Amino acid sequence: MIIKPLNDVPKEPVTVYGSTKTTIQWFRKPSESTHFMLRRFEIGPHGQIGIHSHPEEHQMFILKGPIELLNEKGEKTVVESNQFVYMPPNEPHGYNNPNEYTVELLCGIPKLNSD
Amino acid sequence: MIIKPLNDVPKEPVTVYGSTKTTIQWFRKPSESTHFMLRRFEIGPHGQIGIHSHPEEHQMFILKGPIELLNEKGEKTVVESNQFVYMPPNEPHGYNNPNEYTVELLCGIPKLNSD
Repeated sequence: MIIKPLNDVPKEPVTVYGSTKTTIQWFRKPSESTHFMLRRFEIGPHGQIGIHSHPEEHQMFILKGPIELLNEKGEKTVVESNQFVYMPPNEPHGYNNPNEYTVELLCGIPKLNSD
Repeated sequence: MIIKPLNDVPKEPVTVYGSTKTTIQWFRKPSESTHFMLRRFEIGPHGQIGIHSHPEEHQMFILKGPIELLNEKGEKTVVESNQFVYMPPNEPHGYNNPNEYTVELLCGIPKLNSD
């Protein structure tokens, strides 16, 4: 069993997709994982993760919201604290923090085989 | 995209492993999933999940603790709110709520192939 307090997991800046004010914590790195990884995101006040897509699904849980999810047209859907979000494979999505405070979410992602 | 408020996901009693006062919410059922599932557990005051093991790992995040994790000897390790726990495949583990209130955790589990 491995226990990791939140502050023992490095917060790495998210710089892809035109993201701003966003960090990711990988509780288990892909190299340590077989089927999936669980990550924690923080998005600072008015920060964002740009719209993007990938073949991996997401299974997310909003720890502290509300957060705006964006679709490929930039249309917003608000998700609240304690809501679960399933993002299907290849569906374009982005994130926006409309608040004056930092929001938080957990995000599970599968490790797809390279073949 | 599918959004599920917490109260829209059924709380099913956990009855295996001699568990007591425990419910599970499957945000995505195994039949709907390919690589992994994310679930939320509530363990009521002084409730427990009995010691057991299985070939699936766990990647957990403690939403509301503290929670006692038990090993195969029944020895306790306390995990706190906002801590991450990795439970390797086949490692015996159980859970105990030492508090007068309900504790909560998220638990990711892989969907192993049957072959």
